[in-house]
Amino acid sequence: MKREMKPSTAIVPTPVVLLSVRIGDDSNIITLSWVANVCSNPPTVAIGIRPNRHSYNLVKAAGSFVLNIPSADQLESVVFCGTKSGRDYDKFKECGFTAAPATKVSSPLIAECPINVECKVTQVLPLGVHDLFIAQIVAVHIDDSVLTNDDSLDVAKARLFTYIPLSGEYWSIGEKMR
Amino acid sequence: MKREMKPSTAIVPTPVVLLSVRIGDDSNIITLSWVANVCSNPPTVAIGIRPNRHSYNLVKAAGSFVLNIPSADQLESVVFCGTKSGRDYDKFKECGFTAAPATKVSSPLIAECPINVECKVTQVLPLGVHDLFIAQIVAVHIDDSVLTNDDSLDVAKARLFTYIPLSGEYWSIGEKMR
Repeated sequence: MKREMKPSTAIVPTPVVLLSVRIGDDSNIITLSWVANVCSNPPTVAIGIRPNRHSYNLVKAAGSFVLNIPSADQLESVVFCGTKSGRDYDKFKECGFTAAPATKVSSPLIAECPINVECKVTQVLPLGVHDLFIAQIVAVHIDDSVLTNDDSLDVAKARLFTYIPLSGEYWSIGEKMR
Repeated sequence: MKREMKPSTAIVPTPVVLLSVRIGDDSNIITLSWVANVCSNPPTVAIGIRPNRHSYNLVKAAGSFVLNIPSADQLESVVFCGTKSGRDYDKFKECGFTAAPATKVSSPLIAECPINVECKVTQVLPLGVHDLFIAQIVAVHIDDSVLTNDDSLDVAKARLFTYIPLSGEYWSIGEKMR
């Protein structure tokens, strides 16, 4: 039997990314799950950011950002960066993260994350409590240690995880089905 | 050591949904992974659909659709609906799916999927090979069998799975981390 619930953000499972951005000396990291690949060519992402977040104005000013895909080892940093403000903390320092230079944008990569996706903003649309940023993927970096011999992602080695908004939980990725 | 790859849709893991839509007697189902929650209030999704897909014009004409979240039992139907065209097949019939009435939109729910999300289109933006559809979530249905006593999602019982574009694989959800 189906039960009708209050409308809510019910798409599951969702990715979890650490967005890194820098303007001058002001760099920050925020955790986001309102993010997706939305176009294959040109490769394009859409992300939702609340205008009251410290990173919102940084991303608008920079016109670019990096989406860093964390491994399960970085879950505590993911929670920290999702619940504390960059107005109060230097999140690179607090998380022990290394800022590495990107190749196509001014914002830094988080060196410790196995996958880094450099993005340039093309449109910003207000939707409600979140604004939608549409951005082209201009560079992708993947750690050698999570690549197979034919340069595909070794999903088990990447130790990916997901956020489930309908339960407020983080879950690991399990077994290959197909 | 990081390796710089060709820019591609590198956000992982991604959700997998079966989009159902109906105009008159013409109903169809397509598998999508270019989909996300992008705004919490009003709850809003963004999805990417290729204009050459049979469902593209159906969604444009209907102005609404249902995103059905499959369980691992439905993986073969997910692959079928992602690789065959509704121009050639009655996908409800081929997959043995039951069309159940939605409450806020004209398109049907897939009764066998544990979660159904009714959506009304608000904007369509061309991005490249995919167009971006932005849509408000107007109703959510969840099967009693995958709800906890406090109406949260029981993730293990829902048997969710994910698609990994960087490897072209489907993986199950594993264990609760937090």
